[in-house]
Amino acid sequence: MSNKSTTRISNAVIRRLPKYRRYLEELLNKGILRISSKDLSASIGFTASQIRQDLNNFGGFGQQGYGYNVKELYEQISKIILGKNRSYNVIIVGSGNLGQAIANYTHFYRTGFIVNAMFDVNPRLIGLRINDVQVLDAEIMEDYLKSNAVDIGIICTNKESAQSVATKLCQGNVKGIWNFAPIDIVVGENVFLENVHLSDSLHTLSYYINHPEDY
Amino acid sequence: MSNKSTTRISNAVIRRLPKYRRYLEELLNKGILRISSKDLSASIGFTASQIRQDLNNFGGFGQQGYGYNVKELYEQISKIILGKNRSYNVIIVGSGNLGQAIANYTHFYRTGFIVNAMFDVNPRLIGLRINDVQVLDAEIMEDYLKSNAVDIGIICTNKESAQSVATKLCQGNVKGIWNFAPIDIVVGENVFLENVHLSDSLHTLSYYINHPEDY
Repeated sequence: MSNKSTTRISNAVIRRLPKYRRYLEELLNKGILRISSKDLSASIGFTASQIRQDLNNFGGFGQQGYGYNVKELYEQISKIILGKNRSYNVIIVGSGNLGQAIANYTHFYRTGFIVNAMFDVNPRLIGLRINDVQVLDAEIMEDYLKSNAVDIGIICTNKESAQSVATKLCQGNVKGIWNFAPIDIVVGENVFLENVHLSDSLHTLSYYINHPEDY
Repeated sequence: MSNKSTTRISNAVIRRLPKYRRYLEELLNKGILRISSKDLSASIGFTASQIRQDLNNFGGFGQQGYGYNVKELYEQISKIILGKNRSYNVIIVGSGNLGQAIANYTHFYRTGFIVNAMFDVNPRLIGLRINDVQVLDAEIMEDYLKSNAVDIGIICTNKESAQSVATKLCQGNVKGIWNFAPIDIVVGENVFLENVHLSDSLHTLSYYINHPEDY
């Protein structure tokens, strides 16, 4: 992590932004156009002061005595997270069950993450079409990366292959890697890495099963 | 969430515990038996004071001038998260790509989460064996729950079916639900719910792609 600016926004704040976006989207879907900071706090589970502090990082949006304009806040936060009117060229490496599940997760497409190619080493998977995307031979991935500007590589391989795939993705100039393999991979300096640790979530659930008094 | 005790441990602390466990496991795998609070802090990315505060919720483990005994801390935290020498009877509802990916994710088995049955409504999936577990007709799930004490139900259905599945799981006395369907479901009072929002993680990645100065 770089340290160059004192106004750098903390990782904790950044991780809360997608949750704000989700809750605001739900409010919009329910036709709620305006919400007090108290009600937003009750629904999202952060204190009103936390919400104010979080949003102040981006200029602040609420108005004293009015609360938040849901549509405006939703659009602003979407722009901050997703960029302005842009989409992302995505490839999935590892096209087994998990890769296919992600390719089929249309939710991502709605926010501009477009899967344009999938790769695998397994001859039985190569050539399949998953949600209209063809599974290509992993052997040609490096060539693919040379002729296509890929924004995000999603790693759905086993943990043994994950690092070598990550290295190739970095050499192929992806901007970000979304890693589902249960292993810590190392990426180049200019590549953003997001690891998904599914077991953390399951372990939180088992904690509560063992300590119901904390729920 | 209940509010009955002033010593209730916050959700934020609980969500950090699995991460401690993962890092300690990695240290153990590297043969590191003792670690200073400063080095643990550097590797896990929380401040030494945060770590001390977190662990103090459970009695505190470090020793002034010694640091942490990695194996002891790992075992204590594992016990807090997973319970003492216990395993969990798990079923997966929805046996498409995601359900199959989770059934095959052997990582869970190592920590005692044993998938004993899978369910689906799709005749092409019913009867399949995934990682030695049979996919059963979703029609018989309620009967299955009557004759088997299931700890955790994992929902891997589409979002249209998720609530009705959750209701049946609650009626069938599961202790916890791990929900992958992208929808907010409602569960009974004594059932713990853990939602996985994969898009939050992808959106964090896209935030950093759009704001590299914050990385």
